[in-house]
Amino acid sequence: MIRKVLIANRGEIAVRIIRTLHEMGIAAVAIYSEADRKSLHVRLADEAYCIGPAPARESYLSIERVLDAARKSGADAIHPGYGFLSEKSEFAEACERAGIVFIGPPSRAMAAMGSKTAARAKMAAAGVPITPGGDASTVEEARATAERVGYPVLIKAAMGGGGKGMRLVHNADEMPSAFERAQSEAARAFGDPTVYIEKAILRPRHVEIQVIGDRHGNMVHLFERDCSIQRRHQKVVEETPCPVATPELIRRMGEVAVKGALSVGYFSAGTFEFLLGEDGSFYFLEMNTRLQVEHPVTEWITGTDLVAEMVRVAAGEQLSWRQEEIVRRGASIECRIYAEDPIGFLPSPGKIEALRVPAGPWVRDDGGFYEGATVPSHYDPLVSKVSVWGPDRKTAIQRMRRALSEYVVTGIKTNIVFHEKLLAHPAFVEGRYTTGFIEENKETLLGYSDVREEDEATLAAAIAVAAARAERKAQRTEGQALEDRGRLSPWVEQHRGRVLR
Amino acid sequence: MIRKVLIANRGEIAVRIIRTLHEMGIAAVAIYSEADRKSLHVRLADEAYCIGPAPARESYLSIERVLDAARKSGADAIHPGYGFLSEKSEFAEACERAGIVFIGPPSRAMAAMGSKTAARAKMAAAGVPITPGGDASTVEEARATAERVGYPVLIKAAMGGGGKGMRLVHNADEMPSAFERAQSEAARAFGDPTVYIEKAILRPRHVEIQVIGDRHGNMVHLFERDCSIQRRHQKVVEETPCPVATPELIRRMGEVAVKGALSVGYFSAGTFEFLLGEDGSFYFLEMNTRLQVEHPVTEWITGTDLVAEMVRVAAGEQLSWRQEEIVRRGASIECRIYAEDPIGFLPSPGKIEALRVPAGPWVRDDGGFYEGATVPSHYDPLVSKVSVWGPDRKTAIQRMRRALSEYVVTGIKTNIVFHEKLLAHPAFVEGRYTTGFIEENKETLLGYSDVREEDEATLAAAIAVAAARAERKAQRTEGQALEDRGRLSPWVEQHRGRVLR
Repeated sequence: MIRKVLIANRGEIAVRIIRTLHEMGIAAVAIYSEADRKSLHVRLADEAYCIGPAPARESYLSIERVLDAARKSGADAIHPGYGFLSEKSEFAEACERAGIVFIGPPSRAMAAMGSKTAARAKMAAAGVPITPGGDASTVEEARATAERVGYPVLIKAAMGGGGKGMRLVHNADEMPSAFERAQSEAARAFGDPTVYIEKAILRPRHVEIQVIGDRHGNMVHLFERDCSIQRRHQKVVEETPCPVATPELIRRMGEVAVKGALSVGYFSAGTFEFLLGEDGSFYFLEMNTRLQVEHPVTEWITGTDLVAEMVRVAAGEQLSWRQEEIVRRGASIECRIYAEDPIGFLPSPGKIEALRVPAGPWVRDDGGFYEGATVPSHYDPLVSKVSVWGPDRKTAIQRMRRALSEYVVTGIKTNIVFHEKLLAHPAFVEGRYTTGFIEENKETLLGYSDVREEDEATLAAAIAVAAARAERKAQRTEGQALEDRGRLSPWVEQHRGRVLR
Repeated sequence: MIRKVLIANRGEIAVRIIRTLHEMGIAAVAIYSEADRKSLHVRLADEAYCIGPAPARESYLSIERVLDAARKSGADAIHPGYGFLSEKSEFAEACERAGIVFIGPPSRAMAAMGSKTAARAKMAAAGVPITPGGDASTVEEARATAERVGYPVLIKAAMGGGGKGMRLVHNADEMPSAFERAQSEAARAFGDPTVYIEKAILRPRHVEIQVIGDRHGNMVHLFERDCSIQRRHQKVVEETPCPVATPELIRRMGEVAVKGALSVGYFSAGTFEFLLGEDGSFYFLEMNTRLQVEHPVTEWITGTDLVAEMVRVAAGEQLSWRQEEIVRRGASIECRIYAEDPIGFLPSPGKIEALRVPAGPWVRDDGGFYEGATVPSHYDPLVSKVSVWGPDRKTAIQRMRRALSEYVVTGIKTNIVFHEKLLAHPAFVEGRYTTGFIEENKETLLGYSDVREEDEATLAAAIAVAAARAERKAQRTEGQALEDRGRLSPWVEQHRGRVLR
C-alpha cells in the first residue's frame, strides 16, 4: 500500500500528479526550491519541504536533498515526473536502497535505455527496427560509419535527449567540425562526450507509442502520439491519432514497442519514440523511461489515468486492463503554452498579471501557475498545457482554436499567437506536416519573426490598428465602455501594453 | 446556414453556448441587463447589446427587447438557453414570425408540452406511462380524483415547473387548504391558477432521458440522468448512469421518450423527466422543451456536443448519428455550485474576491464569473457547474471530491461544503438515494443547519479549531509561512473571515 507520495518535481507536472494522488486518497508531499516557495504545487500539496536554492543542481537535481525530504515526510514512494531526476537510474537505485518505492521503471531498465547507443543495440536484438548507423568514437570512425549508411547522417549524443548535441551532416567535408561541436556540446550538456551516427530520415514525422507494464510481466500500449510539430527539436504541439497513420501501422508499432519494453524487463509507463518515413517505414529513436509531457492526449482518447496506473503498478498491482480492453475514441491535441517571446523563442519569465485560462466542454488546462504568480527564470518556462478532445480531428482543431482564443495572460509574453496561427495553417489542418514544419513555415507562423528592437514602431502600429478595429467593433454595440477589455481579442489585449507605452 | 446567433440568456449557459458557437465559426451576440454589464458572457461574445434594467421582466423576459437586439445585430438565429424565455412558445413563434431561426423545438410542440395536464394526456395517448391522476378544477373535483387514485397525492400547477405550486396531500382533510394554497401559488408563479392531481410515488428517483431530433423525423435518445439529489424540488447534483437502472430499463425509457417526442412533432433537444419507483416502474413527469442545466453529464459519457447539434438541426441538417451510433462510456457527475448560505439555502450574492476553479484531468467547470466579478442578486445564484468524468462511478466520485477540494471562492458563501459532505456520504457513495435524500439527511449534510445567528460563536470556535489544525500541519513543513493560504483547506479558507472578524 502506498499512502504518501513525494513528488520530486515542480510546476504543472507536480500539480497534475497531486491531483491524481488526491483522487486516490494518497497524501501528496511537495518539494520546492527557494524560487518556488509560492508555487501552485506547494499550495495544493498536503505538505511541502524547501530543499534548497533555485539552481536545479542545488535542489531538484540533488538526490540527497530529495531523499532527505522524503524521509522527513515519511513518504512511502516518490514520483519523479519528467525532466530533473526522472531518467537518472542512480536516483531510482538510491530510492530502492532507501526503501522508498520509485514510481517508475526498475533502475536496471532505465540504465539499459539511458545510453542511446546501448539502447539501439538492445532494441535491434529485440526486433525493433532501428535506423542504419553506428559508433563514432573518432572523426575517422564517424566518416566510415557515414559512408556505410549513406549521407545525410545525424551525429547524436549517446546520453542525449531534447535535440541537444545533435548535428545534421550532409557530406564528408562537413564531418570534422560537426563531429567536434557535437562532442563538446554532448560533454557540456550530459557530462559525456560520446556521440554516434544515424542515417538521417528525410521529412520524417515523430510518432511515439505509449506503453505501460506491471511487475508481473504484463505490458500494453496505449496507441500513438504525433509530436512532429517541434521547434529546435522541442515538441510544442502533440496530437493523436497521427493524421497519416493507419490502424495497421499503429498495431505494428505498438506490438514492437511492447516487445522492446519486455525485452529489458521494463514496467511502469514509458514511451517509444519512432521516426516515421514518408514511405511508412519506421525506426526506433529512443525510449523515454518516464511519464511524457504530452501524456494528456493519450488520457483523453483512452479514458485512462496514466499517473494513477503508474502508482498502482509501483505498488505491485496488476495492470488494470488487457490490450484488447484499451479502446481509443476520437482525437486529442495538446498545445504547450510557454512564457516566451515569439520572436526567437526566448524565455519571458516574470509576474503573471492577469490569467484567464480556457475552460468548458472537453478543454483541459494543466497549469502550474495562478494569477499573480511569478514564472521563475530558472526553469523551463512552461506555463500550461492546453489539451482538447473531440469526436474527430476537425472538431478537436476547432475546439483548440476556441480554447486558445479564450486564453488571456498578461505580464509575460507567450506563444499563444504562434499556436493560433499554427492551428489555422491549411497544411496543419490537412495533417500534412513533418518535423521540419515550423522551420519551413517560419514566416507564416511567427509572422513578425524578423521584427527587431528597432522595428517596434511597425509592430506598435499594427497593434494600434488591431486595437482600433476592436474598439470600432465595440462602438457598434450600445452602452459598451471602451475600457471593457473583453472587447479586444486576447492577442490585442496581450500586446496592448506595447502600444500604450 | 447560420452565421450569427444571439444568445437570449446570461451567466454560465450563455458562456457555454458562446464556446460552441465559436468552435463552429459562428459569431456570438450577447444581450445583457444593466446589472450584467461586466459579465463574463458579455466579454466572451463578439458583440453585446444592453436590453434594459436588471429585473428580468424588463430585459431577459422581454420578447420585444430580445428581438430588437437580434434585428440590430443581424443575427440569423437565437439560442434561448434554459429558463427565461426558453420554454415560452410565444417567443418561439415571435422568432418564427420575425424570420429568425429559433434554436429549439417548433412552437407548436412547445405549446403541446407546456401545459402539464395536456402533455400528460398526449403522452398517455402515445403510450408513455403516466402516474394515475386527473383534473382538479375545484376542491371537490380534487378530492374525487384523489379518492380514485388513492392518497397520498400531489397537487401540481398545470403550467408549473421547478416544484413551484406543488403540494403533497396525505388525506382528504388536508385537501382544502392545500388546494387553495397550490392554486394561489400557481397563479403567482405562472400567471395561471390551474392545478391537477397525481398519485404520489413514494421514495422515487428522478430519472430523465435526453432526446434530440431533427426536422426530418429522426429522433434519438442519449441515455439517462439521475437527478434525484434535490433540495426544495431543485436539482443540485446529477449523474449518469443512474446507479440503480439496468441497461434494459434505460432502453425502455429511451424508446418511450423517443416515441413521445415524435408524437408531438418534436425536434431539437428535449428531456423526458420520469419518476422511477422502487419496484422499477416509471412514470412520465413532464417534458422540458429546451437544453437542460445538467446536459454536461450526457456530453461527458456520449462525447456529443448537444449545443452544436441543436444549432445543426435548427439549420435543417440531419442528425449526426443514428441511435446505434451513440455509445456511452464511463460515468459522469455534476455539482451545481450556488452562491448561497448553506444555512437555509439563502442566496449569497456579492463580489467574488478570489476564485480558483478546479481543473486538470476530466474536470469541467462551466462558470459564468471571473475573479472580481459580482454575483448579482437579481437572478439564480448559480456560480458554476463542476462536472467530472471517470471510467466508472467510483472514480468519478473520487474525482469530484478532488475537484471540490480544489475549488476556492471567497467573498460570497457557497454550497461547496454541502457537496463535499454529500459526495462522502456512504449512502450516496453506494448509490442508495431518492428525491428525499437531502431532507432525510439534513443533519449530516448541512452539519450546522441549525446554527442560528446567536450560535455563531460555536461555529467560529469549530472553524478556529480547524484553522489551528491546518496551521499545525503547516508548521510541520519547513520554511512555510503561516499566511500561505494554500495550507488551509478550501473550507477553512472560505470561512476564515468569520473567525477573524
